[in-house]
Amino acid sequence: MITMADVNQMDFEQFIERFGNVVEHCPLAAGAIWASRPFSDVNDIHECVSTFLDSLPYHGRQAVLRVHPDLAGRVAQQGTLTSESAGEQRSAGLTELTEEERQQLTDQNHRYKAKFGFPFVVCARQNKKAAILSGLEERLRNDEDEELRTGLEEVKKITYLRLLDIVGPAEGRPETAERED
Amino acid sequence: MITMADVNQMDFEQFIERFGNVVEHCPLAAGAIWASRPFSDVNDIHECVSTFLDSLPYHGRQAVLRVHPDLAGRVAQQGTLTSESAGEQRSAGLTELTEEERQQLTDQNHRYKAKFGFPFVVCARQNKKAAILSGLEERLRNDEDEELRTGLEEVKKITYLRLLDIVGPAEGRPETAERED
Repeated sequence: MITMADVNQMDFEQFIERFGNVVEHCPLAAGAIWASRPFSDVNDIHECVSTFLDSLPYHGRQAVLRVHPDLAGRVAQQGTLTSESAGEQRSAGLTELTEEERQQLTDQNHRYKAKFGFPFVVCARQNKKAAILSGLEERLRNDEDEELRTGLEEVKKITYLRLLDIVGPAEGRPETAERED
Repeated sequence: MITMADVNQMDFEQFIERFGNVVEHCPLAAGAIWASRPFSDVNDIHECVSTFLDSLPYHGRQAVLRVHPDLAGRVAQQGTLTSESAGEQRSAGLTELTEEERQQLTDQNHRYKAKFGFPFVVCARQNKKAAILSGLEERLRNDEDEELRTGLEEVKKITYLRLLDIVGPAEGRPETAERED
């Protein structure tokens, strides 16, 4: 855990090294918000990242989802997930799927990508595998704009928890109640 | 070398895997342009990348530069450059600097980053070390907006040469004369 004073003293190389994967495979987000120092707390950093993601053009927001790995997919099976993703998928129980569950997830991921052109993204640390499987079934019924919005909101939740791991919670703010919506 | 037919048949995971670093540390660019398939040739892909980079908000364009490594800097000395960057820096002669040249480059990089808040980016494959050192000296005199523009144009040149390595030149178009401006 590092202090906000540490964070605010980092040059952009140090900052990108430490915060480069708070949005999966998107060091651009860290590179973009560095100019907004000094940050007051985790919520401040998170808001800057969220604002940056929302400011991306349509194709850029689709791309933020496209660089995410499938849940329990090929990259997970190859063991080449980022350490953050690996921990998150483990915490949701996705490393302990039955053969039937794995097949169901693979099929639904495939249908989801065929329909939307980007992968199903969900904050795995806030869900267990049963909720993920039923959520995927449900979200398959949405249209592309809804899913782009929903996927990006999930990215922001993932980012928030990754930021908490680095800098800890803001003082005096109950971040869990506030964020788990 | 792969054919355009191969490129146009890739799903987004394959596409991002192959084209994810045509903009250094910015798989988002590949993720964004995938939706623009089918591509006709290398120039078409390059134009899509350029349009995407230009469409980024101001902080995003700064970030594209910020995720680039210093020429002959810390990352190069640690041996952890991307393979593309390592080859490019080698071709410019930056792996064979005299102690004096290295010191000069380090000092100027430092001044450049202090002035602009992002690193000096130049298409190393189109320059030799003497041209890079004098170019850096010159560009230090610009203002931030000019350097953001110039740096991004250099990123596009780097991208073009990386794309050529993957898909080869467009038929009937003399790409070198056209691009080396």
